[in-house]
Amino acid sequence: MIPAVSLQLPNGQQSPIYIENGLLSGPEPWTWLDTGPEVALITNATVAELFGEQAESQFSVPVHTIQIGDGEAFKSLETYGQVMSELIAKKLHRDTTIIALGGGVVGDLAGFVAATFLRGVRLYQIPTTLLAQVDSAVGGKTAVNHQDGKNLIGAFYQPHATLIDTATLATLSDRIFVEGLAEVIKYGVIVDRGFFEWLESNTKPVLNREPDALDFIVRRSCEIKAEVVAKDEREQGLRAILNYGHTFGHALETVSGYGTLLHGEAVAIGMVMAARLGECLGWCNQDTTTRIRGLLTAFGLPTKPPAVDLDAVHASMYLDKKVAGGKLRFILPSAIGEVKVTDKVTESALKATLAEFDSAAA
Amino acid sequence: MIPAVSLQLPNGQQSPIYIENGLLSGPEPWTWLDTGPEVALITNATVAELFGEQAESQFSVPVHTIQIGDGEAFKSLETYGQVMSELIAKKLHRDTTIIALGGGVVGDLAGFVAATFLRGVRLYQIPTTLLAQVDSAVGGKTAVNHQDGKNLIGAFYQPHATLIDTATLATLSDRIFVEGLAEVIKYGVIVDRGFFEWLESNTKPVLNREPDALDFIVRRSCEIKAEVVAKDEREQGLRAILNYGHTFGHALETVSGYGTLLHGEAVAIGMVMAARLGECLGWCNQDTTTRIRGLLTAFGLPTKPPAVDLDAVHASMYLDKKVAGGKLRFILPSAIGEVKVTDKVTESALKATLAEFDSAAA
Repeated sequence: MIPAVSLQLPNGQQSPIYIENGLLSGPEPWTWLDTGPEVALITNATVAELFGEQAESQFSVPVHTIQIGDGEAFKSLETYGQVMSELIAKKLHRDTTIIALGGGVVGDLAGFVAATFLRGVRLYQIPTTLLAQVDSAVGGKTAVNHQDGKNLIGAFYQPHATLIDTATLATLSDRIFVEGLAEVIKYGVIVDRGFFEWLESNTKPVLNREPDALDFIVRRSCEIKAEVVAKDEREQGLRAILNYGHTFGHALETVSGYGTLLHGEAVAIGMVMAARLGECLGWCNQDTTTRIRGLLTAFGLPTKPPAVDLDAVHASMYLDKKVAGGKLRFILPSAIGEVKVTDKVTESALKATLAEFDSAAA
Repeated sequence: MIPAVSLQLPNGQQSPIYIENGLLSGPEPWTWLDTGPEVALITNATVAELFGEQAESQFSVPVHTIQIGDGEAFKSLETYGQVMSELIAKKLHRDTTIIALGGGVVGDLAGFVAATFLRGVRLYQIPTTLLAQVDSAVGGKTAVNHQDGKNLIGAFYQPHATLIDTATLATLSDRIFVEGLAEVIKYGVIVDRGFFEWLESNTKPVLNREPDALDFIVRRSCEIKAEVVAKDEREQGLRAILNYGHTFGHALETVSGYGTLLHGEAVAIGMVMAARLGECLGWCNQDTTTRIRGLLTAFGLPTKPPAVDLDAVHASMYLDKKVAGGKLRFILPSAIGEVKVTDKVTESALKATLAEFDSAAA
């Protein structure tokens, strides 16, 4: 098979991304995959019910399926330890391949397992949610959460390949499908004005989940992410732009309690807050914020935080991985398709933006 | 400072090793180290008592000291989670540097913490036992144990540098000092006949811990390890020779319960067993085994397993990371200074060797 996108890594290796509507239900086993003598398929009950059999039937080697709980609460060190114990109990070895079949939680956790089981085994990502297909399964970030913050424990570990079947998106609830669109919109805001405008003009085919529209948004998102990661795999510079909306977003997620806001929803709100902050600093005009808010709204995404303690959000932001030398780093749009990375946001500007979004005060 | 040895990594980077008697007690702070704005020093109570203040005084940035329990039992996922919680509670960030000050347990665990805290932060190894100075702190293997086997969870993660003060070796108990000699002897057996013979002729200065002798054995061991790792960082081939004595050794350690046999003691016994197995297969002559056993004995190392269930040892060997495709891999000497890696040992030869070492039957 020919990959739709290929992520070129700094060490000279490639991490190809295959995108095809119907890939999982194809009649031919994936003999073109290099799996070693056995496969450990990590998934959850919901995904296993939908795609477990299809996925298992693609392998001609024995498949050991390991199910974790469904939801962000299971992206924990505890679940990680349980999966490790299962792999060890099954006597799997270094030539085992780990397959992550599911959304972001499964992908991040299984990826971290693959990175650290026996100091690293082969990994394939098969993301089944939009958020995972356009973001979390691409680029090699793996992690589990700590009770005090998201993704604080993890590794950079690239999948041998990522296999995307956009047909899986038909099974998602509206809320889960739509949260993924937040990351899709993000790519438009940070580097691709044309893509943003295409989304503005095509809300209907996207929301109707028309196969061609899905194929396009997934492919374009993967292309952008792969281009950025190829230039900066370990987030020492450029890759930070992918965190647009995430400085506010992660803190909102943490403070509101995992599960109240979905990740994409928190990022959507965070993108609006970051746009407003940029506007306050005179970096972008009001129209930029309005268009971002407008597109998010058109897709049914939230643009205002729920009733949470914004002082706690403020404190939580300082706990983020991206805090360097005690300074918060923000990714702020200067126009649609352009962002700036800065650690020079004043506390007063930040507090003013937080206050503006305080629903209790509104 | 000029490194005594420099490990050349495949990605073009270097992991230098500084070796100096008195390095920790030097009057000048280590301003030549690149530490970022703060340091988390991971150690245990025993080591902290001996070298904690010395080490802390070498840094001109704030030092957060985190102590773990002393002993192999603390090289666990549980301790790992506790250390992560402490780092997070102290609000440390990506520009933090982790310093591992101690023996193999501290180095392996702190190294795995550094590899995975916020997806990886800068790491310096300051090994204070002979075993750690000649082996575990060099080459980037980090890990924690699982109840069913050693080092089953971990990562390859190279230290920014390794700082070795051979003066720390004066504080070790005889048993802890001597166990490190097993790995030193190993280097002679696998690649350096001259070094093996030097050890045969210099047991006294080594056992008296004369500074020049210590400096030489540490330096030569680090050179050999660095050469091997430079050619095969991720153990896809050559690096396996460093596991001479470890296939039997790990299994003996696991079955006898961590702490009964020290790692180096288990490796010493494993080296004799592997030599005998090689001899049974006709790969080496009796003289090779005799000389290996003789040198180990001269240094006070054990050469026979304690009273353990050798069927359990046999079963445990199959759980080792190095088992590929269900086949055990052995590193067997063909002469002093030469080993062969093989996965072609028959079950009958293996069982015969195990039976020969069965102390219950003897």
